[in-house]
Amino acid sequence: MLKRIHHVGVAVVDLDASIAQYRDAFGAQLLHRAVNEKEGLEAAFISTGEGEVELMRATREDSPVGKFLAKRGPGLHHVAYAVDDIDEALAEARAAGLELIDATPRAGMHGGRIAFVHPKSVGGVLTELVEG
Amino acid sequence: MLKRIHHVGVAVVDLDASIAQYRDAFGAQLLHRAVNEKEGLEAAFISTGEGEVELMRATREDSPVGKFLAKRGPGLHHVAYAVDDIDEALAEARAAGLELIDATPRAGMHGGRIAFVHPKSVGGVLTELVEG
Repeated sequence: MLKRIHHVGVAVVDLDASIAQYRDAFGAQLLHRAVNEKEGLEAAFISTGEGEVELMRATREDSPVGKFLAKRGPGLHHVAYAVDDIDEALAEARAAGLELIDATPRAGMHGGRIAFVHPKSVGGVLTELVEG
Repeated sequence: MLKRIHHVGVAVVDLDASIAQYRDAFGAQLLHRAVNEKEGLEAAFISTGEGEVELMRATREDSPVGKFLAKRGPGLHHVAYAVDDIDEALAEARAAGLELIDATPRAGMHGGRIAFVHPKSVGGVLTELVEG
């Protein structure tokens, strides 16, 4: 059902410095960058060939990414898998007993439909499904 | 330089239960499974389409994965990127100021050459390069 690793999400303190480091050290190019006011984050998507890294900084301390940084420090935050049909994927995940953060898909920062599965039901891994 | 996300590494407590969960919830199939006595871990590689998830359990508490689990609990452990030429990739990473855990490539559990970059020089992300 999973098609590929769509991206990994990484919480960072300094977004500009992180973008520059991935470019200088790994040749990874910035694809797009956007603020999500509702989630309290600014994200930069950088290309790692067929996959992407989503570098995320908190725009406020009480946002999910802000709380993550305060608790765990910068580092790996989530993994996202591409799926063909997100409704079907969510139904299968639910049937297998996973707790969904998004019971129904919502628009992601890429434009496509996404949904998150709760890390406590996937061995501590915040897991995102991305349609497309 | 990076070609794709080769795999994400996930530290788990119960390897059999985790393999079963990824199969039941996400349709991910077990590819191979092996013990690495030197690193004190047992790993199961499961297919997520074009990428893989490496589920890892500790075979002893004082191994790197055992210490990770004791300190942070189960969850995302590392991300691995495929590169064409690992010697060139390591030279570029070193030139950009990254601290290498493996100054020269070594054989990975897949058989190909790998090297790890220290998380403290990549914003808290334990980063692996995989040739191939």
